Amino acid sequence: MNLLDGKKAAQAIKDELKIDVAQLSTEGKKIPHLVAILVGNNGASETYVAAKVKACEEVGFKSTLIRFDEDESAMKVLDTIEELNNDPDIDGILVQLPLPKHISDDEVINAIDPDKDVDGFHPVSVGRMVQGVPTFVSATPYGIMLLLKHYKIDTKGKHAVIVGRSNIVGRPMSILLSNNTNPGNCTVTVCHSKTENIKEYCLQADIIVAALGKTEFITADMVKEGAIVIDVGITRVSDTSKKSGFKLKGDVAFDTVAPKCSWITPVPGGVGPMTIAALMMNTYRSCMMKN
Amino acid sequence: MNLLDGKKAAQAIKDELKIDVAQLSTEGKKIPHLVAILVGNNGASETYVAAKVKACEEVGFKSTLIRFDEDESAMKVLDTIEELNNDPDIDGILVQLPLPKHISDDEVINAIDPDKDVDGFHPVSVGRMVQGVPTFVSATPYGIMLLLKHYKIDTKGKHAVIVGRSNIVGRPMSILLSNNTNPGNCTVTVCHSKTENIKEYCLQADIIVAALGKTEFITADMVKEGAIVIDVGITRVSDTSKKSGFKLKGDVAFDTVAPKCSWITPVPGGVGPMTIAALMMNTYRSCMMKN
Repeated sequence: MNLLDGKKAAQAIKDELKIDVAQLSTEGKKIPHLVAILVGNNGASETYVAAKVKACEEVGFKSTLIRFDEDESAMKVLDTIEELNNDPDIDGILVQLPLPKHISDDEVINAIDPDKDVDGFHPVSVGRMVQGVPTFVSATPYGIMLLLKHYKIDTKGKHAVIVGRSNIVGRPMSILLSNNTNPGNCTVTVCHSKTENIKEYCLQADIIVAALGKTEFITADMVKEGAIVIDVGITRVSDTSKKSGFKLKGDVAFDTVAPKCSWITPVPGGVGPMTIAALMMNTYRSCMMKN
Repeated sequence: MNLLDGKKAAQAIKDELKIDVAQLSTEGKKIPHLVAILVGNNGASETYVAAKVKACEEVGFKSTLIRFDEDESAMKVLDTIEELNNDPDIDGILVQLPLPKHISDDEVINAIDPDKDVDGFHPVSVGRMVQGVPTFVSATPYGIMLLLKHYKIDTKGKHAVIVGRSNIVGRPMSILLSNNTNPGNCTVTVCHSKTENIKEYCLQADIIVAALGKTEFITADMVKEGAIVIDVGITRVSDTSKKSGFKLKGDVAFDTVAPKCSWITPVPGGVGPMTIAALMMNTYRSCMMKN
């Protein structure tokens, strides 16, 4: 069993970006600039945004955090996005979701210029991905593709079973893995809550992507010997022995599944760190389109 | 074996639309108006556009055919689309593809207002479909969904195997059939040129969608007893006994496959007629968003 170590792979990507950014700086060229917008003070959102800002610092990007009060008007947020769209120094705009209830996530996402949509949630970004046109792929699926690439996993002709059909992970993974790209070119099956015999499908899989958000759903009896398992789940489970009061659990029962796998992602330290590396890559690519 | 008769289903849809349009007219409301743009005089394109214009007449829509010479400039076509985008009387704009080589298909499609993109090829239309937001789904996949609906086929929990991953058919079908909708909620597998054992996947299928463009690729030994088979292939094969000099063949070996099926589409008279009905439905829906 080999570990698809997201922490290591993400670090390698960030190290490379750091060199590239230093090079841009030396040449007097524009440095990537990411703006994060945070409305209100949801604890998890604070943590995520802080991690993104920290990653920008690590690789040498400029970053700006714009904070709004919980009760800020949608109009004000939309006006700010409009300004950022028109500011040539800004390469990437991300709005930390979820937004307060009085602001429509969709309306805000749709207001971002697709050429600065480094979170890849704009319909144009999604449509371009489906059509195989260069675009920003959202952080989790793009991070998984970068992880497979980092470990030079040969996916061509393999049978990938995706468990979950969410817009954020399952759906884009099914598209990316079946595209005529490398990684890609898998035969892909999408399972979901209406699939009656998920176990049978999983047992056929050369690659399993578990993205349904149920802790330890994928058990050893569902996994073929030698399979590659990507665990996208990340659920906080109470654990009084930890200082934080919780530990993170994935959608895969790691301890019993791992011995059967050729490759597997741990939780934490698998897909998680890759999402931030993917966001950095998108911001860098956005900047390079202008450089 | 029952026939998924696209000719009958399309006629039923058009008959209903005709009544709805007459009603709009009686109420003094706006009538749907479709504009087709044809550049050059490709024989097949002429035939397709003529069929679309005829369908508009049948259901009582207004239709306008704009013709350009083969060597017309891209700029002129784009300017025309801009005018149509701004004309409140126009509900749908379709550009018959392929365009002459000096004009970019993508640039022209991207110029159409997504709210008038009744062909559903704009990235915004595709992205919205993936995200499950109401949108215009392109004519062939939407036509297939309408056909399944017309015959009240219960697809929930069924295993659908899509053979082909094209942007026009395979990819959107895989998304639509796995969405949480009715028809939909299938477990979906996408096979393509890099799939090594297509037969094994097909033998598991409750529903096969054949959309690879190889005549009679799906043979009886690949189909499970009781399966539902949708044949999207339509290839002209030379036939001197016909006045036209050709006959139409699908991707399914109908004569031997049909006896095993619970439902199957014929070629011609299956998916083909549904595409035009789907285009009419999109144009009607676009008009109703304004009415």
